[in-house]
Amino acid sequence: MAVLKPALEQIAEDIDASFDALLAVAGDPRDRLIEAMRYAAIGGGKRLRPLLLTATAGMFGVDRASAVRAGTALEAVHVYSLIHDDLPCMDNDATRHGKPTVHIAYDEATAVLAGDGLHVFAFEVLSDPAMSGDPFVRIELVRTLAMASGANGMAGGQMMDIAAETASFDLPTVTRLQQLKTGALLAAGVEMGAILGRVPPEGRTHLRGYARDIGLAFQIADDLLDTEGDEAVAGKALRKDAERGKETFVSLLGVERAREQAKMLVEQAVQHLASYGPEADVLRAVARFIVERDH
Amino acid sequence: MAVLKPALEQIAEDIDASFDALLAVAGDPRDRLIEAMRYAAIGGGKRLRPLLLTATAGMFGVDRASAVRAGTALEAVHVYSLIHDDLPCMDNDATRHGKPTVHIAYDEATAVLAGDGLHVFAFEVLSDPAMSGDPFVRIELVRTLAMASGANGMAGGQMMDIAAETASFDLPTVTRLQQLKTGALLAAGVEMGAILGRVPPEGRTHLRGYARDIGLAFQIADDLLDTEGDEAVAGKALRKDAERGKETFVSLLGVERAREQAKMLVEQAVQHLASYGPEADVLRAVARFIVERDH
Repeated sequence: MAVLKPALEQIAEDIDASFDALLAVAGDPRDRLIEAMRYAAIGGGKRLRPLLLTATAGMFGVDRASAVRAGTALEAVHVYSLIHDDLPCMDNDATRHGKPTVHIAYDEATAVLAGDGLHVFAFEVLSDPAMSGDPFVRIELVRTLAMASGANGMAGGQMMDIAAETASFDLPTVTRLQQLKTGALLAAGVEMGAILGRVPPEGRTHLRGYARDIGLAFQIADDLLDTEGDEAVAGKALRKDAERGKETFVSLLGVERAREQAKMLVEQAVQHLASYGPEADVLRAVARFIVERDH
Repeated sequence: MAVLKPALEQIAEDIDASFDALLAVAGDPRDRLIEAMRYAAIGGGKRLRPLLLTATAGMFGVDRASAVRAGTALEAVHVYSLIHDDLPCMDNDATRHGKPTVHIAYDEATAVLAGDGLHVFAFEVLSDPAMSGDPFVRIELVRTLAMASGANGMAGGQMMDIAAETASFDLPTVTRLQQLKTGALLAAGVEMGAILGRVPPEGRTHLRGYARDIGLAFQIADDLLDTEGDEAVAGKALRKDAERGKETFVSLLGVERAREQAKMLVEQAVQHLASYGPEADVLRAVARFIVERDH
């Protein structure tokens, strides 16, 4: 884990600084919106998606500023999804990253708009010529993020998640749900790093295998945390899935088998990186961190 | 108006067909989301933004299929904004285009997600290689739509609109609010048509002047309709601004001066097109339609 701690600290600092620079207040009545966007975006979260992006980009010599910029866009989509997920009509959560959620700190209308604002902010950032001088790189980044977050990605997974409250899903359906809801955006981090690194699609097979495996391992770990975690450490409400009667990896597999499955996926993820040298050490460390974290 | 009626009919038909083709049901639990997106997107609205896009593109010989595809993305952003605007925490509207709003026909959570889904759908469509073989055209379309709909465009205007309920805005501030909230997306239609037509930025001055003027005229006409219109014809609730104590062009200028101002803006918009021949007739007709419509 020697490479991980500084990488986590650095990405947290860089993403905060990047949001701070890119989400500038306007000095007019729009500032309440921008302040709400900043409130949600700055100073919280593990920044795991940007870390995957910068770690992958770093393997191929991409300058850090570009990778952080793309990571900020990716994280903006993650943050918008949390704001909307936390709304009273969705998960109705009052706490996120240890502080009041946006609709509590501001109001519901502002939370809806702040989510929408961060959503489109991601595409403003990626399409800006400052992102990359190559329009093909910019459009590939946009396409990857859009596909990962739409009906065939995160939003589709969220819809399945709502359906899961009233239907009883089997393991393949829960797996599919989680691949869409969580896996797609984590995988987008790796893919966007590879795009910035100009890795051709046919050279991304192992990276995609890695991303798929850690995505599933991440969700199993999340389900385990939801069952066994400490709310104070997690900074959010836990035990929600069981209350709502949702099937999870833990409810379907049991705690022991779920834990084994997560470990197996992490080993498999690391094996996908066998053709890379020490330049992939951060990705290896992230894979292990995903199942060992306590929040 | 001889050119307008067939243009309005054709764009309505084309946009419906395009949404129908592009929003394909998945055959799994995501279908409730996709159905809600289709419910909101298909069969309603004047399709004014896609009409501006296709009419502008048509002036420069762009094939209609490409213009309709880009117009579908643009309209998707408009539709997502209506879904979120109609939410109980925002305008709390039960009727839109003469039918129940999405959160009434489905539920609030589905409405939030359907809005989010249509939002990102726009960027999926524009970044798809099927949109244009030229990555520079695709990224310019993305950038134009993103800028027009974010904090420096539509979302910023919506935030000012919320602030307008408790603050008393003067005419310049209401003008700025409306330029952001409504004008930016209408202008994006003209701009995206010019991008597809490969009009260089320095050749877009007159088109941008036209777009700015009709954007403002559109909103003044909307304020007049809100004051004087027929709810049955409009297919939505009216008289809301006055109830909420919001300043509008009509409250600030009075009915007569507002009507004169709208007509003046339309004439000015048409004058911006003086260097174009009959190829700009649809844009000229749209400008007049904007102040003469009854819904």
